[in-house]
Amino acid sequence: MKYRLDLGYRGTGFRGYGRQVEGIRTVQGVLEEALATIIGPVVTEVAGRTDAGVHARHQVVSFTTDTPVTGVRLVKSLNKMLAPEIAVSECSEVDDDFSARFSATSRAYRYRILNRVTPDPFRAGLVWHLRDPLDLDRMNAACAALVGEHDFASFCRAAPNRSTVRNLAEARWERLEDLLDFCVTASSFCHQMVRSLVAVTVDIGRGRLQVEDMARILDARDRSASRWAAPPEGLTLWEVRY
Amino acid sequence: MKYRLDLGYRGTGFRGYGRQVEGIRTVQGVLEEALATIIGPVVTEVAGRTDAGVHARHQVVSFTTDTPVTGVRLVKSLNKMLAPEIAVSECSEVDDDFSARFSATSRAYRYRILNRVTPDPFRAGLVWHLRDPLDLDRMNAACAALVGEHDFASFCRAAPNRSTVRNLAEARWERLEDLLDFCVTASSFCHQMVRSLVAVTVDIGRGRLQVEDMARILDARDRSASRWAAPPEGLTLWEVRY
Repeated sequence: MKYRLDLGYRGTGFRGYGRQVEGIRTVQGVLEEALATIIGPVVTEVAGRTDAGVHARHQVVSFTTDTPVTGVRLVKSLNKMLAPEIAVSECSEVDDDFSARFSATSRAYRYRILNRVTPDPFRAGLVWHLRDPLDLDRMNAACAALVGEHDFASFCRAAPNRSTVRNLAEARWERLEDLLDFCVTASSFCHQMVRSLVAVTVDIGRGRLQVEDMARILDARDRSASRWAAPPEGLTLWEVRY
Repeated sequence: MKYRLDLGYRGTGFRGYGRQVEGIRTVQGVLEEALATIIGPVVTEVAGRTDAGVHARHQVVSFTTDTPVTGVRLVKSLNKMLAPEIAVSECSEVDDDFSARFSATSRAYRYRILNRVTPDPFRAGLVWHLRDPLDLDRMNAACAALVGEHDFASFCRAAPNRSTVRNLAEARWERLEDLLDFCVTASSFCHQMVRSLVAVTVDIGRGRLQVEDMARILDARDRSASRWAAPPEGLTLWEVRY
């Protein structure tokens, strides 16, 4: 039987989603350990392998098991073991050919900048605190060049033999009081892509780069053209669709 | 010269506001240490001595110093040293007879309950997560008995020779989506008073006590009548007025 879990987590205390060596605390490690205790060992697939310090408002995981599972009961047991940093909202039975990773048709991320002078203790670890004045119109003008299908090699950490062509459905910034929110959606993203896009956009917003530099960097198709990535704490996997 | 600091903090990592013995991390300890580094040793007064794990959205501290202080510069230096858990929003010169503690005319607290089945990793430590259905109307009916001047001995941790008479200006619950917010205002509160009031109100809200039990417990003027206190993480010192 195949099952799907919908969950969220605060990434602060984890070295990313993906399991690493023994002793490194990861979301996958903690989740699979809890599942093993409740229903026996399982191998999980995931919609988005978030980096260390990156959060998920909505993440999806799938796994196969021979143990009969009652969704409501599994959710309750998992939340008892995983709280307070991970919260499972749903467990549902799915078709055998469902894969949390390969069946996903779109992934939406948000990147949040706290754009004011004073830090906010209640949002520390959940936003990038940046005091520099940022010009939202310039940032949105630059991001318009990103929408559609492009080779995003300039914004992707090298992964030999893997395509860096992606199709962005949405890439826009919104101001919500003292927050700047970057909403970006695609069928999939390559590694560090959102944080690299944010880094270049912010440099355009604070005047270190020009609006036209976004298209220039995109066209370069070379990682060295963008150079840095915004810090992980501002990034959240927002929604996965199937 | 006397100065006033307006600040906020997330109380999770502190053993309360008030300085304790060496090695115990407190807000006052960390703050006075930072002030000592910047302007030399000072003794501070505070509007509300919050308990371990309790937060402050708005707290006020005052101190006297011979060192000339530029408000904007002190705020910047403090935030550099104190971030991310404490944020100072303002430093202003005040009259010599100003006291953060004794000049305060009102203190508002909020107590927040996350009232849903699934935990929320992003609000863990900032709310009391309670799954039980709560009847807001019953809770507000009970809290109406609290407004005005009363002896709150039933809700106060014993402090010999100190009055437990307080005058509550406001004590009401509001529902904001999945949050239940208790807004309570008085010139001052005694120790553990808000959390004890919340505990009794919640028991009324989930049907373990009757609405009339609030007045009965209040009239008893005896700590043993209320017995427990809601957990600290839901409590925030919201606003201090002068």
